[in-house]
Amino acid sequence: MVYGQEISFDTQGFSDIKDITDGVNGVIGASKMNQGIACISVIGSTASVSTMEFEPALSKDIQDQLEEFVPKKKITRHSKTWGDDNGFSHIRATLMGPGIAMPFKDSQLILGTWQQVVVIDHDNRPRNRKVYVQLLGE
Amino acid sequence: MVYGQEISFDTQGFSDIKDITDGVNGVIGASKMNQGIACISVIGSTASVSTMEFEPALSKDIQDQLEEFVPKKKITRHSKTWGDDNGFSHIRATLMGPGIAMPFKDSQLILGTWQQVVVIDHDNRPRNRKVYVQLLGE
Amino acid sequence: MVYGQEISFDTQGFSDIKDITDGVNGVIGASKMNQGIACISVIGSTASVSTMEFEPALSKDIQDQLEEFVPKKKITRHSKTWGDDNGFSHIRATLMGPGIAMPFKDSQLILGTWQQVVVIDHDNRPRNRKVYVQLLGE
Repeated sequence: MVYGQEISFDTQGFSDIKDITDGVNGVIGASKMNQGIACISVIGSTASVSTMEFEPALSKDIQDQLEEFVPKKKITRHSKTWGDDNGFSHIRATLMGPGIAMPFKDSQLILGTWQQVVVIDHDNRPRNRKVYVQLLGE
Repeated sequence: MVYGQEISFDTQGFSDIKDITDGVNGVIGASKMNQGIACISVIGSTASVSTMEFEPALSKDIQDQLEEFVPKKKITRHSKTWGDDNGFSHIRATLMGPGIAMPFKDSQLILGTWQQVVVIDHDNRPRNRKVYVQLLGE
Repeated sequence: MVYGQEISFDTQGFSDIKDITDGVNGVIGASKMNQGIACISVIGSTASVSTMEFEPALSKDIQDQLEEFVPKKKITRHSKTWGDDNGFSHIRATLMGPGIAMPFKDSQLILGTWQQVVVIDHDNRPRNRKVYVQLLGE
């Protein structure tokens, strides 16, 4: 069985981190499936999906780390070519990847106690961000 | 068809790398499936799954690289807030991601000759680590 | 339903980036499936799969970034042990991961307007690279 649904939400950009665990579990609930794989994929080339202990101090640590690795002031060929100044966002997104696949069972994602599914929006402006959740299972 | 099973094993932490290829192929064997997708996902927010040529020199190279990028002595807000001193582990895990999806055929993962599936446990202490393997296929 | 097919193509190595979006959509077309999950996985331990806005300036930015993080001249234990001088390729590949899972619908990958699926071949020589695309869906 296949069941797919888009989730959308607002972000501030600049690697703003949003917890989408409840959103994904909501899609699993709507599908009436018990177990399977959830493919969670960002639409667009400037955001990433991962998991973390979602708490404000760690969110800031991760943002600082990304800023250390690929600063938002970084001069890129992409920004010079297209004039949209978000070359750093693209680099961060491609290196982290656009999505993850997670198992679910008993109609819930299989996660640790302090583990949430997050979207990190690296773009250089506030956006309405869309994530597609595709479920396969039974 | 869906088949899921937990694999567990001991690690030393600090980005200790364990080869779980035989463990995952064992789950495929137990499922009696021939082909499909294996979703391999760490339970917890301080470990990662990837593939590599599993040999000791490269394991040490990867650990050195992670230490260069996010040193274990790194002062993080997360460690200061929670006092558990493993902020670096969380950052490494979120940037690398919690799991991978791999195809299987003829009841085996599709891998290169020198390619193994590994778990990298970034936590700051020895742990018993759990990985959930969810198979979909036929 | 399960449908799998190998895609192969030539690369120049050194994190050469190839757009495989049409190749993956071609496999979906051949499968006659309408919706599901595509598991896109590199065979071998020195290449990665991700998504990006595929244009030459950004490709060069990403290559520069990888060179900054893990230079091709980096002295590694792996290269000293095996004499094949591609330790940097292995490190880049393991940190980025070997593959991605993407949703598809209406017989097409669900992607943003400026988002393509790419293989980044980190090896230190031109290669014929193989990617396995495993589809599950209906």
